[in-house]
Amino acid sequence: MKSFKLGLAAGVLTLGASLVAGAAEVPKLTPEEMKKASQIFFDRCAGCHGMLRKGATGPALTPDITRQRGLQYLETIITNGTPGGMPDWGRQGILTKDEIKLLAKFLMHEPPEPPLMSLAEMKKWWKVYVPPEARPTKPEHNLNWKNFMGIILRDVGKVAIVDGDTKKLVSIVDTGFAVHIFRSSGTGRYFLTIGRDGKATLIDLWLKKPDKVAEVKVCYDARSIDTSKYKGPRGDFMDKLAIVGCYWPPSFVLLDGQTLEPIKIVDTSDYTWDTNEYVREARVASIVASHHDPEWIVSNKEPGKVLIVNYEDPTNLKMHYIDAERFLHDGGWDMSKRYFLVAANMRNKVIVIDSVEKKYVAEIETGVKPHPGRGANFVHARYGPVWCTGHLGSNNVACIGTDPINRSRYAWKLVANIELPGPGGGTLFIKTHPESPHIWVDRPLSAEPKLQRELYVIDKDSLKVIKTINVIEELKKKGYKNIDGRVVHPEFDMYGKEVWVSVWGRKDKPTALVVFDDRTMEIKEVITGDWVRTPTGIFNVYTTTNDIY
Amino acid sequence: MKSFKLGLAAGVLTLGASLVAGAAEVPKLTPEEMKKASQIFFDRCAGCHGMLRKGATGPALTPDITRQRGLQYLETIITNGTPGGMPDWGRQGILTKDEIKLLAKFLMHEPPEPPLMSLAEMKKWWKVYVPPEARPTKPEHNLNWKNFMGIILRDVGKVAIVDGDTKKLVSIVDTGFAVHIFRSSGTGRYFLTIGRDGKATLIDLWLKKPDKVAEVKVCYDARSIDTSKYKGPRGDFMDKLAIVGCYWPPSFVLLDGQTLEPIKIVDTSDYTWDTNEYVREARVASIVASHHDPEWIVSNKEPGKVLIVNYEDPTNLKMHYIDAERFLHDGGWDMSKRYFLVAANMRNKVIVIDSVEKKYVAEIETGVKPHPGRGANFVHARYGPVWCTGHLGSNNVACIGTDPINRSRYAWKLVANIELPGPGGGTLFIKTHPESPHIWVDRPLSAEPKLQRELYVIDKDSLKVIKTINVIEELKKKGYKNIDGRVVHPEFDMYGKEVWVSVWGRKDKPTALVVFDDRTMEIKEVITGDWVRTPTGIFNVYTTTNDIY
Repeated sequence: MKSFKLGLAAGVLTLGASLVAGAAEVPKLTPEEMKKASQIFFDRCAGCHGMLRKGATGPALTPDITRQRGLQYLETIITNGTPGGMPDWGRQGILTKDEIKLLAKFLMHEPPEPPLMSLAEMKKWWKVYVPPEARPTKPEHNLNWKNFMGIILRDVGKVAIVDGDTKKLVSIVDTGFAVHIFRSSGTGRYFLTIGRDGKATLIDLWLKKPDKVAEVKVCYDARSIDTSKYKGPRGDFMDKLAIVGCYWPPSFVLLDGQTLEPIKIVDTSDYTWDTNEYVREARVASIVASHHDPEWIVSNKEPGKVLIVNYEDPTNLKMHYIDAERFLHDGGWDMSKRYFLVAANMRNKVIVIDSVEKKYVAEIETGVKPHPGRGANFVHARYGPVWCTGHLGSNNVACIGTDPINRSRYAWKLVANIELPGPGGGTLFIKTHPESPHIWVDRPLSAEPKLQRELYVIDKDSLKVIKTINVIEELKKKGYKNIDGRVVHPEFDMYGKEVWVSVWGRKDKPTALVVFDDRTMEIKEVITGDWVRTPTGIFNVYTTTNDIY
Repeated sequence: MKSFKLGLAAGVLTLGASLVAGAAEVPKLTPEEMKKASQIFFDRCAGCHGMLRKGATGPALTPDITRQRGLQYLETIITNGTPGGMPDWGRQGILTKDEIKLLAKFLMHEPPEPPLMSLAEMKKWWKVYVPPEARPTKPEHNLNWKNFMGIILRDVGKVAIVDGDTKKLVSIVDTGFAVHIFRSSGTGRYFLTIGRDGKATLIDLWLKKPDKVAEVKVCYDARSIDTSKYKGPRGDFMDKLAIVGCYWPPSFVLLDGQTLEPIKIVDTSDYTWDTNEYVREARVASIVASHHDPEWIVSNKEPGKVLIVNYEDPTNLKMHYIDAERFLHDGGWDMSKRYFLVAANMRNKVIVIDSVEKKYVAEIETGVKPHPGRGANFVHARYGPVWCTGHLGSNNVACIGTDPINRSRYAWKLVANIELPGPGGGTLFIKTHPESPHIWVDRPLSAEPKLQRELYVIDKDSLKVIKTINVIEELKKKGYKNIDGRVVHPEFDMYGKEVWVSVWGRKDKPTALVVFDDRTMEIKEVITGDWVRTPTGIFNVYTTTNDIY
């Protein structure tokens, strides 16, 4: 009895205290102001601080903290940023003085509980534009659709499909809001996108003019999507199912792969793997689809667990909850597609999960805030198969041995630590292809404008940077004087001969997609047009389908 | 974008509306009053209405509802009860007028978020009185400990251990608050109890005077506990692990079976299996331990899912989430211990889960609010192995065929519906034993005082009630004039010769344990003493260990 009284008393006292403090010091907001501030917070702040403001990549901003800091302090930080990574929203002109004042006041209030979503609510958002039976049984065009490139046009709410062979624009699809990634269905016929607003889009590449055939919104904040890629003795699941990983509500959602009809919501709120503390806002980061088993590998960020989700029967979901490390973010397969390597970014580690034996294997310190995307795999003469990652916080590409059978000496060890020129980190993506002798590395989040525009080419044998390319300078030499922006997301074509990158500029001005010849490392083609606005991620159908990276 | 704005706006508007409504109409409470009201609510109301007041067995009591009803209405209901099952707390004199007024005011406020508990907080409650290495390697007494009876002395915060052979009191153990159930460890050497306050106690029956050797508190509200009972090719887990199922925080907790050290917390908040709506307060009802596999079968009440939890590696928990039916409550094994039958009480159904193939098998309508305890198993000449349940809301015992191989015609069908005398339901427990020709049925929650005191004996062949026993009247005939109370929880001794029941009276007055001869259905012995206060559940070591019921 006593115990419960104590526990409950503590809870009640907190409530009492916050009511008292609230009455005296917290600036009043009208419902309209709350609504506006909530929206700004969601757009600009929630990604790092969390919808419930309990902190993640950024620090916690709960009222016990913000009320101590005071309005003046909050406004200053929002305006000027911090060296730790907080953007200078005021100085950049992205938020006005009034918006910053409003946001500071909002931060002193209890965070409003963001809305939840049931299956019935999802279905209100669900639209099938072309039902499966009305879709073609073979491609309605003669284009080499396996070499199509899906391009995210981030801030204009669209994606583009470009033919990798001819470099011609095939289609522009209206997806809405900021698309985060593309993934391919098991056969590659469908592209799926997920927006930061939780909207998933299914794009049929066999239509005469590829277009969306279905869409649905399954959460308010999402980052990941994948598809069922297993075909074998346990069934043919190609193109049958999809999964969306949400940030809010904390969940993943199973969808019909042909129509995007939502089937099942799985809560991801959980206890941290180490101290067993409850995390309501436990966000789903990366998801990969197994080729060995009818399973997805799902990273649950804050609790630090990797979930292996068997999708054979959604009414009887079988899951493994593997203790890994906190702050799981992005990750991908090793070359054999048996091991999943995932960054625990705030722990400066990469965690290795065995998808066949379904267990934790190892963890490796690689550098400050590893950000592999899905990583880069190749076979090195000495180390055998390796997997590499770049870093947001340090200027190195780290490579890990991934063959515990034939190269056990190097397995799950750091075998190469390749230094990039210049200070700091800032790398988002690295990419290679089995046919290429190179790894390409970007650096769009460097603090240095010059480095944001650079690409680095690493030689797979010598494990050294053999070329630094300032893409904007190279474009100028070719006569493209007005194209500027950060250079992001190198992507190989299906043959491993070309590397495409985006020039991520301002929304009000078209930029370019730049195609390099992988062997000469020279610009081969520049794709421009009024439609090329805020291009970011580039995804090749063939390599995305087959998890070649 | 639009979608999120809409969603969030709805959330914010709700908040705005509740603030406005709150300011105008909600009676103020001091932090002290909030604390007191929270405690009363927990003690008397949370079991049916939920800690978050979202409703379960009782209706929802969230402020949107309670504020519409108004203070007067709430006070009336709390005082007088309802025909639907709400107790008349005022008329019974359990709550004072002032307490009822306070509770009504409290109900108009937002429910305070009850406290959570991390592993570190649990460990503060954790005590090992006798470490494993200091415990005896064989029993320190010559008593037949496998026939010990564990007796819950509910309202005095203790349990008694009584020798089933001699009927003598062996030990009284201070467990604190209302113990809900006993379970036995795999070998039977340890008794484990769980209190409604989330406190688990480990009692070593081999000590010269059996006593608690460890305790821990793992939640604020709990109902279930079980142990690891698997021994086979995948390991010997006898006495190795324990599990506690919690109501609040919504979770189950894995414990070391020798010391009760908490190992792992698993969140059970989930989406309902059918409409996929989020349930924060998803409560763990029954748990049973598999004898076939290193697994527990866990009923998650509100979401309506049965979880099969593999305990081989707590750092890599493997679970099945089987869609079953909402409002899962108590349940037990069929005779083969392959099938788990569990009541979905507000759905008037029993759900069957196959623990070997780990899947849903069937659902059967049995009557109003089935309450099987663990049920009663026997082999009927015609129907083969059957499993039976009593009902809280209807006066029948329902039996279901459980042999899909040799009696497929009757498997998962209602094969007998045995009527009890008199109106209404009120049965909590039914019990049998393979050596007995009878099933014994209690009725302590009947609305009729006379029926609360009755036991019914059903003949396994004829499937009819062959005797009705008013236990209090029988005691009077034997000269026990002053013993009164509800008669509850028939329990067989290990041999199937005797049936023990509790007379559940008032805390301030000793009552009795009554032992019947199963064959003659006559009183064989009456156990009395000053210690016999508010006895409720009775658990035999042998039958509890081996899941014989």
